[in-house]
Amino acid sequence: MKTAVQLLETLADGGVDVCFANPGTSEMHLVAALDQVPRIRPVLGLFEGVVTGAADGYGRMTGKPALTLLHLGPGLTNGAANLHNAFRARTPIINLIGDHATYHRKNDAPLQSDIEALARPVSRWLATAETPVQAVELAAWALTTATRQGPGSLIIPADVAWSDEEVPTPVPDPSGPAPSTWNSRIDDVAARLRTPGCAVVIGGRFLSAEACAAAARIGAAPGAPVMTETFPARVERGRGRAALPRIPYMIEMSAGLLGAVETVVLVGAPAPVAFFALPGRPTHPTGADADFLTLVEPGEDPTAALLALADAVAGPAAEAVTGSPADAPVLAGADHEKALDADLLARVVAATLPDQAIVCDESISLGFYAYDYAAGAAPHDWLALTGGAIGQGLPLATGAAIACPERRVVALQADGSALYTLQALWTQAREGLNVTNIILNNGAYAILDLELARAGATPGGPAARALFDLTRPAIDFTALAAGFGVPATRVHTAGELAAALDRAHATPGPSLIEAMFR
Amino acid sequence: MKTAVQLLETLADGGVDVCFANPGTSEMHLVAALDQVPRIRPVLGLFEGVVTGAADGYGRMTGKPALTLLHLGPGLTNGAANLHNAFRARTPIINLIGDHATYHRKNDAPLQSDIEALARPVSRWLATAETPVQAVELAAWALTTATRQGPGSLIIPADVAWSDEEVPTPVPDPSGPAPSTWNSRIDDVAARLRTPGCAVVIGGRFLSAEACAAAARIGAAPGAPVMTETFPARVERGRGRAALPRIPYMIEMSAGLLGAVETVVLVGAPAPVAFFALPGRPTHPTGADADFLTLVEPGEDPTAALLALADAVAGPAAEAVTGSPADAPVLAGADHEKALDADLLARVVAATLPDQAIVCDESISLGFYAYDYAAGAAPHDWLALTGGAIGQGLPLATGAAIACPERRVVALQADGSALYTLQALWTQAREGLNVTNIILNNGAYAILDLELARAGATPGGPAARALFDLTRPAIDFTALAAGFGVPATRVHTAGELAAALDRAHATPGPSLIEAMFR
Repeated sequence: MKTAVQLLETLADGGVDVCFANPGTSEMHLVAALDQVPRIRPVLGLFEGVVTGAADGYGRMTGKPALTLLHLGPGLTNGAANLHNAFRARTPIINLIGDHATYHRKNDAPLQSDIEALARPVSRWLATAETPVQAVELAAWALTTATRQGPGSLIIPADVAWSDEEVPTPVPDPSGPAPSTWNSRIDDVAARLRTPGCAVVIGGRFLSAEACAAAARIGAAPGAPVMTETFPARVERGRGRAALPRIPYMIEMSAGLLGAVETVVLVGAPAPVAFFALPGRPTHPTGADADFLTLVEPGEDPTAALLALADAVAGPAAEAVTGSPADAPVLAGADHEKALDADLLARVVAATLPDQAIVCDESISLGFYAYDYAAGAAPHDWLALTGGAIGQGLPLATGAAIACPERRVVALQADGSALYTLQALWTQAREGLNVTNIILNNGAYAILDLELARAGATPGGPAARALFDLTRPAIDFTALAAGFGVPATRVHTAGELAAALDRAHATPGPSLIEAMFR
Repeated sequence: MKTAVQLLETLADGGVDVCFANPGTSEMHLVAALDQVPRIRPVLGLFEGVVTGAADGYGRMTGKPALTLLHLGPGLTNGAANLHNAFRARTPIINLIGDHATYHRKNDAPLQSDIEALARPVSRWLATAETPVQAVELAAWALTTATRQGPGSLIIPADVAWSDEEVPTPVPDPSGPAPSTWNSRIDDVAARLRTPGCAVVIGGRFLSAEACAAAARIGAAPGAPVMTETFPARVERGRGRAALPRIPYMIEMSAGLLGAVETVVLVGAPAPVAFFALPGRPTHPTGADADFLTLVEPGEDPTAALLALADAVAGPAAEAVTGSPADAPVLAGADHEKALDADLLARVVAATLPDQAIVCDESISLGFYAYDYAAGAAPHDWLALTGGAIGQGLPLATGAAIACPERRVVALQADGSALYTLQALWTQAREGLNVTNIILNNGAYAILDLELARAGATPGGPAARALFDLTRPAIDFTALAAGFGVPATRVHTAGELAAALDRAHATPGPSLIEAMFR
């Protein structure tokens, strides 16, 4: 199994220090090789959706490649929904997918399937190592490619992994990323922004506080509104930092904001589109004649371009614009006794948020106000559901906590989506991760009630209602958390939630708060 | 949404009466249409792996198409591992997968992905309905094709589902399945079976008691051993029925059985191959010169051919051969106090098995003896893990119980695999299904310890051991079951298990027994 060891050594040399894993028989030599490469820490997930979602959280927070270890086609597809989210976030992830031995693939053994076909739609790059030399070379290539392009898949047949052939150490790729071309467009874009009818949409893998501050300066100067994409992969925000609005999720609202805009400047974000097409509603928030100017392509870091554009538009001396609410949200005395609702939830979460918290947001309908209130909370990172594939939140929080052990991670988690990948709690307990999991229990896929109405398919009868209902029987998240070794508590009022959050944030290790909205 | 209604009406006309569903926004009109087609009962799964696994269980037990409703690419991939198992079992399943509206696909909205590419490796047939006429025609085609070939996928864009166009009712396909060709080969095969060095391997979607009895007559007559494939989709067995051995899972054992065989007659089974290639071990249990005679192709019903072959080989008057152990397994008095092990487990399960039980077997390492002991148990059906993609057991049991509400379903379930799709428990509770779930808790992916050794990658160090360990922290399945609304108990001894099984089998609705092996 020299090849397995050399492959992992190559990855470790490139900075890989964690392997999120749920292996099977075809990965046994890679598993054994982990014992020879102690620089890489194995982290077990009980389900591949946990593994890939954790890799996404780790990659978003560190910016360096997160490694997964997956078992053939079924292991990959179990993790594919969260890879879809990572694909949209362009998170640097290297999926090592074990395959049958090369000479066994023709035999159509029970676990045989077309792994490349399954991997391609969730991979920005893809390769199968047919030989030991290729395996080690492709590992070096994967490091560079994942960092530049996002998640991808490297398929390793078992006999390649177990080979004892000694292969050459790959020479690192000396070429840097392709040079940016935005410089040549700054003046044109700045000139356009001085005319009326413009808007700026920013996005990308990481909207740093610096990038957001520059964007806010652009927005303040010529009067062109600046906003982020609807579900940014990661944005630094909170008190003292720029508070940029997001493009609203609902096309009815985003069209109100962007419908009359003549020119949209895109800085790291794709052109905004409706999340879903609905009968009688537009597919784009922008009008049919809107013009798009791309300053920075999606995937490219927007920071330098935003700084340059801010200088060009507002001048280097222009003051930073924080735009944050003057005061942190507070809970009035009378609010403490009130039953939770979306507004109280948002205020309590913001008021209690620890400094440098990382919020993993899969709050769906109940989190409607949480993002805006948190603009006045302690400085934090916010990670959104980038691809719309639910089941991201708890795994993402798990990986973010492994990336940043000194910071508190807060999973703001809808109940229905939590149940896709609840096994993440066990990894949190096993690794002693500092995660506060807030389960928003309204006993329903509430968003679907809304979507049914928006789709014009109301009124829903008993069949439709049954498919949105999570109360028959009621799900007890405190029992589920206990089963996975995570201490849990249930709260009904704003005051109870605030007290539970203060306790959870201050206690090392994971905990779960089941916040009842019914 | 006339098209959505017409599509479901067409399926209902073809016998579809259950829709296993986990829908999202793109399926809202299909959801609403379920209220107009009350002949189809919606059954909600909290995760798509539950939905597809339940469809597999339902399809295996009824032989008629099981319908699923899945949400775009991520919903499909969440269910793909169990579709992989169904693909191997050739279970009749129609996956209705919602997609973006046809005119929105070009916009690369966040949930856009190549659904056909993701579906193809787990689908024996595949189509996208681009128009309302196609949607209804393809529904009719799907009924026939799923019944003949196994699981497949029908992708329905949202605007096709919500169309109010009235389309023609499709004319049912008058052609029957392709005529069988085995008749012409019976005499040749029978002649060959009268020579030494033959073996017969049978398999397929359903090995009925009648088929197994015929196979046993074939095995008894000329001395050619008859065995089933390693993981049959469904086999009728138990007291008074033929007890056919399975080809062992481990190539070391199967090669011992088949290594010297000169001719293998295949009746509904593919040629046997190793589950995995391992260093220094063969990929086939048969020798290099073995000759294969296919009497019945995989997927085709083997029953008639087995009856004809038995008549040709043994004569119509040959006595039925049950081959079952004379006595049902019993538990001696002293055994009651003993801590559970694989042997005691097998004896207790067999001794307590209710008449006409349906055993869904994902017992992995601890179930090593269960199949053989159950040959002497009450008559039952046994459903195996056909494709090796774990997470099948609890969903399969859920679907089998919906198919056969009057029978007791017994899920014989390893702990590690149970945690892939544990959400199935909730559907069992919601629908009041008669399932006894036995979780075999050894706190480990024990099979991987064995596979590590078989792969020659021992000794495993701390990294490898950590990836097989489920005890840090210990997982409490009784708490997890309670969280999903299923009553649960924990047992340590054979006597406790027997008593708990008797209680569970006799109590309507689901229950869970956590059997401790550590």
